[in-house]
Amino acid sequence: MCGIFGIFGHPEAANLAYLGLHALQHRGQESGGIVSVDGGRLHSHRAMGHIADVFDTRTLAGLPGTAAIGHVRYSTAGTSDVRNAQPFAVEYVAGVIAVAHNGNLVNAVELRARLEAAGAIFQTNADTEVIVHLVAHAREADPVARIIAALRQVEGAYSVLFVTGDKLIAVRDPHGFRPLALGKLHDGWAFASETCAFDLVEAAFVREVAPGEMIVVDSEGLHSSRPFDLPGVPPESFCVFEHVYFARPDSRVNGQSVYRVRERLGRRLAEEHPIDADVVIPVPDSGIAAAIGYARASGIPYDMGMIRSHYVGRTFIEPQQSIRHFGVKLKLNAVREVLDGKRVVVIDDSIVRGTTSRKIVTLLRGAGAREVHVRISSPPTLFPCFFGIDTPTRSELIAASHTVEEIKRYLSCDSLGYLSQEGLMAAVEAGPKGAQRFCDACFTGSYPVRIESHQGNLVRLGATTGGRA
Amino acid sequence: MCGIFGIFGHPEAANLAYLGLHALQHRGQESGGIVSVDGGRLHSHRAMGHIADVFDTRTLAGLPGTAAIGHVRYSTAGTSDVRNAQPFAVEYVAGVIAVAHNGNLVNAVELRARLEAAGAIFQTNADTEVIVHLVAHAREADPVARIIAALRQVEGAYSVLFVTGDKLIAVRDPHGFRPLALGKLHDGWAFASETCAFDLVEAAFVREVAPGEMIVVDSEGLHSSRPFDLPGVPPESFCVFEHVYFARPDSRVNGQSVYRVRERLGRRLAEEHPIDADVVIPVPDSGIAAAIGYARASGIPYDMGMIRSHYVGRTFIEPQQSIRHFGVKLKLNAVREVLDGKRVVVIDDSIVRGTTSRKIVTLLRGAGAREVHVRISSPPTLFPCFFGIDTPTRSELIAASHTVEEIKRYLSCDSLGYLSQEGLMAAVEAGPKGAQRFCDACFTGSYPVRIESHQGNLVRLGATTGGRA
Amino acid sequence: MCGIFGIFGHPEAANLAYLGLHALQHRGQESGGIVSVDGGRLHSHRAMGHIADVFDTRTLAGLPGTAAIGHVRYSTAGTSDVRNAQPFAVEYVAGVIAVAHNGNLVNAVELRARLEAAGAIFQTNADTEVIVHLVAHAREADPVARIIAALRQVEGAYSVLFVTGDKLIAVRDPHGFRPLALGKLHDGWAFASETCAFDLVEAAFVREVAPGEMIVVDSEGLHSSRPFDLPGVPPESFCVFEHVYFARPDSRVNGQSVYRVRERLGRRLAEEHPIDADVVIPVPDSGIAAAIGYARASGIPYDMGMIRSHYVGRTFIEPQQSIRHFGVKLKLNAVREVLDGKRVVVIDDSIVRGTTSRKIVTLLRGAGAREVHVRISSPPTLFPCFFGIDTPTRSELIAASHTVEEIKRYLSCDSLGYLSQEGLMAAVEAGPKGAQRFCDACFTGSYPVRIESHQGNLVRLGATTGGRA
Amino acid sequence: MCGIFGIFGHPEAANLAYLGLHALQHRGQESGGIVSVDGGRLHSHRAMGHIADVFDTRTLAGLPGTAAIGHVRYSTAGTSDVRNAQPFAVEYVAGVIAVAHNGNLVNAVELRARLEAAGAIFQTNADTEVIVHLVAHAREADPVARIIAALRQVEGAYSVLFVTGDKLIAVRDPHGFRPLALGKLHDGWAFASETCAFDLVEAAFVREVAPGEMIVVDSEGLHSSRPFDLPGVPPESFCVFEHVYFARPDSRVNGQSVYRVRERLGRRLAEEHPIDADVVIPVPDSGIAAAIGYARASGIPYDMGMIRSHYVGRTFIEPQQSIRHFGVKLKLNAVREVLDGKRVVVIDDSIVRGTTSRKIVTLLRGAGAREVHVRISSPPTLFPCFFGIDTPTRSELIAASHTVEEIKRYLSCDSLGYLSQEGLMAAVEAGPKGAQRFCDACFTGSYPVRIESHQGNLVRLGATTGGRA
Repeated sequence: MCGIFGIFGHPEAANLAYLGLHALQHRGQESGGIVSVDGGRLHSHRAMGHIADVFDTRTLAGLPGTAAIGHVRYSTAGTSDVRNAQPFAVEYVAGVIAVAHNGNLVNAVELRARLEAAGAIFQTNADTEVIVHLVAHAREADPVARIIAALRQVEGAYSVLFVTGDKLIAVRDPHGFRPLALGKLHDGWAFASETCAFDLVEAAFVREVAPGEMIVVDSEGLHSSRPFDLPGVPPESFCVFEHVYFARPDSRVNGQSVYRVRERLGRRLAEEHPIDADVVIPVPDSGIAAAIGYARASGIPYDMGMIRSHYVGRTFIEPQQSIRHFGVKLKLNAVREVLDGKRVVVIDDSIVRGTTSRKIVTLLRGAGAREVHVRISSPPTLFPCFFGIDTPTRSELIAASHTVEEIKRYLSCDSLGYLSQEGLMAAVEAGPKGAQRFCDACFTGSYPVRIESHQGNLVRLGATTGGRA
Repeated sequence: MCGIFGIFGHPEAANLAYLGLHALQHRGQESGGIVSVDGGRLHSHRAMGHIADVFDTRTLAGLPGTAAIGHVRYSTAGTSDVRNAQPFAVEYVAGVIAVAHNGNLVNAVELRARLEAAGAIFQTNADTEVIVHLVAHAREADPVARIIAALRQVEGAYSVLFVTGDKLIAVRDPHGFRPLALGKLHDGWAFASETCAFDLVEAAFVREVAPGEMIVVDSEGLHSSRPFDLPGVPPESFCVFEHVYFARPDSRVNGQSVYRVRERLGRRLAEEHPIDADVVIPVPDSGIAAAIGYARASGIPYDMGMIRSHYVGRTFIEPQQSIRHFGVKLKLNAVREVLDGKRVVVIDDSIVRGTTSRKIVTLLRGAGAREVHVRISSPPTLFPCFFGIDTPTRSELIAASHTVEEIKRYLSCDSLGYLSQEGLMAAVEAGPKGAQRFCDACFTGSYPVRIESHQGNLVRLGATTGGRA
Repeated sequence: MCGIFGIFGHPEAANLAYLGLHALQHRGQESGGIVSVDGGRLHSHRAMGHIADVFDTRTLAGLPGTAAIGHVRYSTAGTSDVRNAQPFAVEYVAGVIAVAHNGNLVNAVELRARLEAAGAIFQTNADTEVIVHLVAHAREADPVARIIAALRQVEGAYSVLFVTGDKLIAVRDPHGFRPLALGKLHDGWAFASETCAFDLVEAAFVREVAPGEMIVVDSEGLHSSRPFDLPGVPPESFCVFEHVYFARPDSRVNGQSVYRVRERLGRRLAEEHPIDADVVIPVPDSGIAAAIGYARASGIPYDMGMIRSHYVGRTFIEPQQSIRHFGVKLKLNAVREVLDGKRVVVIDDSIVRGTTSRKIVTLLRGAGAREVHVRISSPPTLFPCFFGIDTPTRSELIAASHTVEEIKRYLSCDSLGYLSQEGLMAAVEAGPKGAQRFCDACFTGSYPVRIESHQGNLVRLGATTGGRA
Repeated sequence: MCGIFGIFGHPEAANLAYLGLHALQHRGQESGGIVSVDGGRLHSHRAMGHIADVFDTRTLAGLPGTAAIGHVRYSTAGTSDVRNAQPFAVEYVAGVIAVAHNGNLVNAVELRARLEAAGAIFQTNADTEVIVHLVAHAREADPVARIIAALRQVEGAYSVLFVTGDKLIAVRDPHGFRPLALGKLHDGWAFASETCAFDLVEAAFVREVAPGEMIVVDSEGLHSSRPFDLPGVPPESFCVFEHVYFARPDSRVNGQSVYRVRERLGRRLAEEHPIDADVVIPVPDSGIAAAIGYARASGIPYDMGMIRSHYVGRTFIEPQQSIRHFGVKLKLNAVREVLDGKRVVVIDDSIVRGTTSRKIVTLLRGAGAREVHVRISSPPTLFPCFFGIDTPTRSELIAASHTVEEIKRYLSCDSLGYLSQEGLMAAVEAGPKGAQRFCDACFTGSYPVRIESHQGNLVRLGATTGGRA
């Protein structure tokens, strides 16, 4: 997954991009980068690591100018390489261009093959570079026209920011898989994956970029157009998992408060899977809002039965195989006084492989919990995502090959309840505005876009055509 | 403040010390270090930074042996230097010795002057080095006897771990200012500032090291003695601020669950300072347990009105002075949907300078809070600490020079309530066992030990004998 | 200037490339790199700095395979950037390819413009990347055919090594500006800019790659062809300055011992510019062989009047402007006992700007030299090089704007003698074999290839057509 | 071995120390450091590596003040550690002091034991730290008096520089083993191990510091005294190996030009061991002056038969065991054209283990030499040095256990000739002034000072009193 931030018309553009990326850090912690524009020239700094490690006073000072775009990235191990860090910036025949991309293209492999046959040399294995080469190979003279020509050829999920020598261009794909918001900051304009970035830089949230919309910002202001509308395509497929897990609770995405949606998921979960218990605890921090909702709807007291370490980072060495449940223990510790002798309901957002949930159950029992009831604020995760979330292959998804009863036994919990698909939709649709249609393919297998057969993961037959299960 | 961890009799001593320090990271994030003992020789690695940055596979592999001690440290800026990082390890006439110290000596300046006059050359400006020179200058032949002779000369707070070529020695000063716990791990023994470190390394908590006790561990087992008992001295002065703020909520210190004490502080606070409101929110994470207690006692719903960033570190560059309330915004963001139009009770553990609290009130109002009622789960902080906590000088403590009403006006909140001294004592004493006497000098000015006049901070006359002003 | 090394068919290919580059370090000290081939995949490591700093055990271990090419580079300050470090390695439609290039293309600007118009995105500003894009845009299917097609479009100086998934290809341009030698090492084949690299890796020198020759090495052996012969072009234009200064004295280039050629230059210089003196001294180390020749031909004793520091590197900080002749003093110090009261002949290979020579004369006089007679073992340097040597623009060449008498006065020497063009040619042609024609454009302005007008330096009218001055 | 440099009364003291150390780099390449004094406070920077790597603009800027001392160091592997890098700087009861030491104490072990018994804690295993502790333990109030008291207790070789808050103190031990020279620079004073450092910083050489002399420099000027004269001790024992090998040829030490002494050694060698040959070549660079002397005395032509790489450093990785004579080949390469078919005399300064000489003979034969005659410009090295030169133990010295004939056979040379002890003395004494007595213990075993029995190397009985064996 990735986070993007852009700013146009502010004297401290790179500094604000740096702060904006800090607020979006939860969307990608593997690498970060900023490209600024000054007098028609691009300045770039990218590196592996957290934003706070990627930039220092000196590197920020090397990013002058009044416009900038930035990117934070997470990817699977195989392609972890600073060359794949974004924004991706190049010089080409029509000048300079940089791009920051959140999402995943589904026809990148065939586009890349076509471009290479025409002589293109790729520097990375990121699908974002395909967009850049399409821009460079376009026949149009104007950079904006080239971007339109390029993006008309790609399929899949893309919320994307470009800078050229004198413009910032924001585009959201016609399905609107990934969020992208527009903000105002003094005389300038800002774009961010989530509104929490606007809060930090003190920009005012204006509205979301619409699916299929392109906004060009230059010295004369905003220009909105819709060059990517697809005839006959469902207008929206916003990723429901942004609501369930991915977005920050203090953000608004798709017209909704992430926190309030999660609290509703918890309330609905209490209705669907009630249990007689002494305490409701979250798996911190992602389960907190749903646990508060569950506690309120059920009347069972809410408590913090596990403490999350502030000091967990990706680079921690795990020296000791003999310590049981090691990974989860570095991150979470149980509070015996909250759990000892109690019947405990523990709320989490989803179960992927099941290994972490199993460790958590053992941790709670080790701290004296008499009963452990696991409640999940989304349906079983059955299918991989091809639109930007790093889910494993189907064979690794425990719910793809096990019944709920089997998963319960694997977790060694006393009961297990998943939110239903209907419950999920009721909770996310309860809001006043925003998409009424979502991409819920990870739960249903119903992909809104045809997936290239050479994608790494096989999808069950018919998945790309079928409706909701 | 600092955290210490020791282990004797385990084949992976340094690895476990590394994990133990990770669990104690909240006690000091400026520097870290481990000294291991192998075949009578010490191996040492110390550096500035978080534990995860200080150590890697290579440096841990360079710390062989079955015994080790470790240290995490926070100090004021002036003495931030890797030479001051602990454990402090030296070779001297009786062999090798290393020391890890949590606390603060109050007669270090005069001891250092005396040692220098006798020819001692100091490498650091840490008071811990005084202990080492006292050991080296002792007349006794045996290292343990030298340690006793040395510690009999020092005054103040010291929970301290030594390793020599074949022993680990743990000592807690007769006042017992700082915690120190004993644990068992397979055939070996462990010591830690807090029990949460035992949870991570899967050691069993045995008991606390008693104030004035020395425990020597060698190949034949544990040897306890009490060489430091002081006639006529109050037996205990455990730091009450460990309960209020410093210790981790999942630890037990002084015979009590930190989490449960804090919940009781919140309940008592609700009784002392009730208010008619819509929601109770904590300042995360330190205010969570007290906020849950307040909510339960008051019947007002608990909610998470602020989100704490996982990515805040000490090294973050703050590029933009013009962003209001910057520091607190990097760490905390308000959730508008929880606060908008509401009467909000916000729970924090203490107010030091008042600047952060003021920013939090502004943040909450900015997110729509109709009323903001600040509740503090401890009495006003009036005096500096000389026993290991990094409080500022009196002149910087807002409560030392302002009435509660003046502070309320400075914070711009609608009401402000501090827990009473009696309420504090009632909450911490409510437990079944542990000290019934505390050091509460930061609230009362009643220091259990005479403070050297050349300490940086002046203390009001009579403070060391008197009760509250 | 640059140095290149390649090896095919040896189990320690990268290690040998590393050693070969060490021996060629004098040809470029700014950056270095190696690309190895293993099972059809390229492995690459490049960095700024000396070879010993660029590689360590870990980086060499990351370069598996039985074939490798390497590169050392020096360039002018403006383009000093690790992205310009070679070998340049890419993936493209026909597979993988890497290139290491010694020389300079004279039509790179126009080729680059043409490629960019066709959609090519350049990563660097090095003319070597033009070759790679030409290969990627070629219509041919076979990589070797693509290389031929690409090199037929370039003009200028290129001794170049390629590796593909299964081949190593060595090419020398039809003029043969830069050296390139073929060696044999056990069952494998090696290529190097100079034979001194073969001495270090214990390869046997086989022969020079001929101007216009391409040698393809694969698992079946060597395949030589001549796809680049130009009708009507003088068959050879070997750079005479390699003999005068650039190559290492223990190398053979162009069929000649560099050391013996330089000794002959010194002998001829003694004949052309005799003087009555007490001692002949070299500017170490480049003037040693010529000084020995001058001493022998003149009968004047040879001595080491200056000591060269072993510790001079490019990164030395020069803190003190007030020290006179600073730069040369860090590198050279006079030996008073050799010079005091003596009439001194000092031998150097060339004078570029004159500033260093002037400092040397002052240094010698400061050490007591009664007379200083400067003798240069080549003609006045009048024109810039466009074929790979980093000479400054004409305006900075002292001999381009001053007579010998004026230069003598600027240097403050008692006499100044340059070797004549005839003397130079007599000395380099005296050998048994090798080119009888040279590129001597730096002395004569007679460039063997038309220079693009947009090259930075203006060339006097008619230079590209004229014969010898 | 080590080199030291000091300066007092110059606004750019640290910069000049940096340059001075650069000129003394040949005396120690393992670590370097500078301590400057500004307003009574010391500023220090020390690190492993060459001077150019140890310092940069930032670290030099952190060394303010008008006085500074610096040190370059080489030591055996076991004690290679930045803590042993000098100058050694401490704070103690009488203020601040730093010390830079060239030489070796022979009673360091017993002094250290005595100091540790009195409570001293040592940070390093360098004997220089003993001097510092002796200063700290002295009873005198005045720092200079403390230094005198301290140095009266040490035995062995010490040319040493101290700085205190307001003085620079230079001392040479009564035997005068190691050189130390005094220079004048504008209004300030400089000290250096060798005069070549004065040439670089443009200081005027004034005189050598006399054996047993102490020079104190403060704001009022120079103060010379002789507090260390020993009754009945031979006045001088200057290290003859400084002349033979260690000092730079452009330096003057002990009243003599190093270059001219070496040329005389070569002339004398030609008289003692004449041979009928075609060419005389040096092992560069240390053998050059002696080879020129041999060539002149013998009438055989001098030539450069081997080229020394400029790029050899300590950190070079040697990847390939199968390359024969690897170590020497990285450093030296033969010039075939000089050697092929010739009878060659090769001049070196000494033979230690014999392994390098053997590789050189093989290298010369491999380049076609018909005969190889090795000539050594000093007597056989029979005994280890205890006064600062890093010779191996006796058992590793080939001449200690083999006859000249056996060594000749091991080297595979056609003849081998060492200079006689008489020849050595005749050459070094031929100068106009300077010591007429030397320490030649490495050739004779006659040590001027009694050696502690616990020194690592056993010395034959009677060595400290006896004459030659």
